[in-house]
Formats: sequence, C-alpha cells, structure tokens
Amino acid sequence: MSASKKLQKLIIEKDSRVCVGLDPIDIPGVEAGEFNATKTLAFLKKMVLAIKPYAVAVKPNIAFYEAYGIPGLIMFYKISEFAASEGLFLIGDVKRGDIGKTADMYAKAYLYKNSPFDMITVNPLFGSDGILPFTEMCAKNDKGIYILTKTSNKSSGELQDLIEKDNDLSISEIISNLVAKWGSNLISDGNSSIGSVVGGTYPEYAELLRELHPNIPFLIPGYGAQGGTAKDIAGLLKTPGNIDIVNSSSGIMYAYKKMGITDLEQIAFEQGEAAKAMMFDLNNAMS
Amino acid sequence: MSASKKLQKLIIEKDSRVCVGLDPIDIPGVEAGEFNATKTLAFLKKMVLAIKPYAVAVKPNIAFYEAYGIPGLIMFYKISEFAASEGLFLIGDVKRGDIGKTADMYAKAYLYKNSPFDMITVNPLFGSDGILPFTEMCAKNDKGIYILTKTSNKSSGELQDLIEKDNDLSISEIISNLVAKWGSNLISDGNSSIGSVVGGTYPEYAELLRELHPNIPFLIPGYGAQGGTAKDIAGLLKTPGNIDIVNSSSGIMYAYKKMGITDLEQIAFEQGEAAKAMMFDLNNAMS
Repeated sequence: MSASKKLQKLIIEKDSRVCVGLDPIDIPGVEAGEFNATKTLAFLKKMVLAIKPYAVAVKPNIAFYEAYGIPGLIMFYKISEFAASEGLFLIGDVKRGDIGKTADMYAKAYLYKNSPFDMITVNPLFGSDGILPFTEMCAKNDKGIYILTKTSNKSSGELQDLIEKDNDLSISEIISNLVAKWGSNLISDGNSSIGSVVGGTYPEYAELLRELHPNIPFLIPGYGAQGGTAKDIAGLLKTPGNIDIVNSSSGIMYAYKKMGITDLEQIAFEQGEAAKAMMFDLNNAMS
Repeated sequence: MSASKKLQKLIIEKDSRVCVGLDPIDIPGVEAGEFNATKTLAFLKKMVLAIKPYAVAVKPNIAFYEAYGIPGLIMFYKISEFAASEGLFLIGDVKRGDIGKTADMYAKAYLYKNSPFDMITVNPLFGSDGILPFTEMCAKNDKGIYILTKTSNKSSGELQDLIEKDNDLSISEIISNLVAKWGSNLISDGNSSIGSVVGGTYPEYAELLRELHPNIPFLIPGYGAQGGTAKDIAGLLKTPGNIDIVNSSSGIMYAYKKMGITDLEQIAFEQGEAAKAMMFDLNNAMS
C-alpha cells in the first residue's frame, strides 16, 4: 500500500488529523543538558501509548537525538520502531538533502523496504538532483517524503517568500510546482506520497498552495506553541479527499508542565488528554 | 583560535588548498551494498594517512555512513576523530538545517567545545532562524559553518538561479548577502568563519559571489569527477588572503581503480599521489 493510502486509511479509522512531535528536550528526572537514555525512552514510550488513540502519526525530529551522538541516535531508532510497531504513521523529521549518490544514501538510510519510517522530510534546495533519488526509492518501497515548501518559522520568508521575476511566483510556489511534478507518478486515490511541509503559521500561504495543487498532502507544523490555530488550518483540511495532518510537539509533550505534575503515569495521561483536545479542536473547526 | 584562522594557518603551512571527501561507497573486499565496519575503517584510515601531507582538510559526508544506521554512524565519528587527531581540518558534510531549538540541537551535535569538527555544512532554506543558532555556537566555540550558497550539481539552478524581482539578484546572491551578514561578527584576518559552499562547476557564478563578498571563504566542491578544473577555480584562489579550499571525493578515493590494484598499501599510495597531483594542479593554476 502506498504511503499516502496508508495515511488516508488511518485518518478515516481514527477520525483524527493529529501528528505528535517526539522531540525530547526536558525530561522529568533528567538534569537540563544531561542525557539519560533509559529515562528518556521510558518517558517517550509512555507518551506514545497515551497519545496513540488520538494521533494518526508521530514525528520524531532526529536533531533532538543526534545532539547526544550515538546513544541519542540509538534512542531515535528505538522510539521510531516502537511507534511504528504501535500502528502509528511514522514521519522521520530529518530534513535531509543532498545530491545524486549522496541523496541515494540518505534515501537508503530511511526509506528501505521494511523501514519503520513511512515518510521523511526532505530539503529541496538542490532541485531535482536532490529529490529524484528519494522519489525513486518511495515508488519502489511504498514510502513517501514531505518536501519543505513553506516552513512555519518567523524568518521563513527571507528566502521562501521572494518573488521570481519571470513568473511572478514566490519561491514557495515554485517549490510547490516542483513537488507536484516530482510526485506526479506517486498518486493514489487523489493523494500523492510526495507531500509538502507547509506551516500552519501562514494560513493564507497554505491556502494558496492548496489551491495550486490539491493532490499534494501537507504536513502542517506550527499548531499550538508556534501560534497556528485550528481555525487557521480548518479550511485546508476540509477540502475533499484531503489527508493533511497537523503537528504539535511541545504543546503535547509538555502539556503537564503548568500543572506541576511529576508522576510519569499522570504525565502520560495529560499528554493523551492534550492530543485528544487537539483532535477535537481540529475536528470541530472542520465541521 | 577561530576556525578561519586555523584553516588559514594550515593552508600556509602545507601550501595546499586540497580538501578530500571521505565518502566510502565501494570498498575493496566488501561486496557492493554490504557493510563491513572493520574493513571500511581500515581503508579510510590508510587513506587519511596517505593524503595527509597534501591535504589541508577532509570532508566526510555523513550520508555515506548514516545509510548503514548505528554501525555506520559509529564509523563516521571514528574516522572523523582520527582525521582530526592527525591534524587535518575537519569538515562535517552534514548539510543540516532546521529552526530555533532544533537548530540548537544540530549545533550541539557537531559544534560543541571539544568537537573534532572544525566546521559543518548547513542548509539556509529557513533563513536567519535556521542559521543564528549555529553562528552563536561558532562564536562561542571557535567553530565555523559553510552555508550552501551555489551547489555544484546540474539542477542547482532550479531554485538557486532564480532571479528575485525587486533587486534583480539570484537566490544564490541573496544567500551570499545573508551569509556575509550572518558572519559579520566572526571575521579574523579578513576571513569569516561563516563560509559558503560554492560549486567549482559554475566558475562564473563563483567569481561573481567572490567579488560580492571577499570575506566569505568558499568550500568548492565539483573538482575532478564532477567536471570542475583548476583553471576554472584558480581566479578565485588567487585573491589576496583567500582561504578557499577545493574538494575532491571519488577522484581521490578511487584514483587506484583504473590501475587494477587490490593491495591496500598500494591503494593508499595511489590516493596520496592523487591528492599530491591535485595540490600541484591547483598551485600551478594559481601561479
């Protein structure tokens, strides 16, 4: 089954658009800046089980693991495998990008046949040479990629909003046109397995990109802590056949903080409640 | 000592601009597609020792290691530490890029105080939010980054050559202006520790970017196998105070191939000879 079809199935079954970031930075019982694989992994596993009924996908960002070298990376693979084994759609937020043989190697790292990862995020700066090695692997192994198209951060416009002279299109629109081209052979049920990362913090931009290419599924970061609201995003999610998902990272992981809770079971419960609230928030905004 | 100053010192001492890529893909005695850490590491260590008299820097591209998961990544750190301990300037070709706290994490992974890495490559697509966490770490720990500005690959122009409407500048020129701004506090002896990756395959572009910002040191890929020649690049290298370096990967690593050699000592000897030939080729073109 193609990656987009698998995601579609999960969205329908769970009636949820929630993707949860697994970006550990501040773990109960671990000093700031220290690393404790046992405690962090236990925390993350409990969190995965707690959010599982309400989330379709999880998105570990490898930077939060790579910062701790090999022990961190071992944990990245472990939590990824655990989440995939629990039936969650697994997005490796690795933002890799390189050319030719080197891009082949990154594709090999994450998109091999029985990889736990369903999709990874990829940077398009190199143009086609940097993307086709990934899309070829996706076609072969029923995997997908989300290509950075309009990122959620404040300075994303410094390059992405620039307007190209000849066609009067922004760089993000041009990337979106390329994403559509790169993914044109990987469409099933109207959705491509080659998607776009489009920040929920720029809803007007997101709507423009959605109109441009209805086949491109969006991974929408920026909900919650970054300031994007369900209302901002609801218009996108309502388009027919749509399989966009919305990510929240610290908004779910640290939902317990303001409550002063320290018990791990209670923490996980509050993380689950936060994922549930996000699911309802998105579903209500859509209806 | 700042990263740019350390590189300058090595260039003067060795009278060389050679950077050698450490991108293992086809190792004698290892079946294609298989992974053998012991044989690969032995091969790479011999290569590092052989090229050391003629190269100022080495540049392992992490993709060639990440493709093999944890055992590959362990090898990446090992060969990196080995090369640094041999006094080579160490460039981690990781092409990482993300925003805010996440970029902090990537910086933490590679640019901590006693990291073997002197510099890493970074992708600028996110704008300032994606770069400042790196430059702050560089300033604190005497490290540097090379920011992808005009890449050496065939399709680099799909995004990087687009002309921005208001200022009539290409995206690469705009990135170059940003690189200059981001690195303006990290200049010593006329060279910034915030450099640019500029492909030797586009010499006219490289000259344009050099004129634009003489303080920005270039890491120039594309020599040899990718088609860039010493003549193409010599004009850049001759500019006063310049600390640009030129990378060759498979041209050095696989120099022995056409000779039908299988003995590891002889292979390393030929790799050293190829690095020496490249050093002379660049120095001759400059004089």
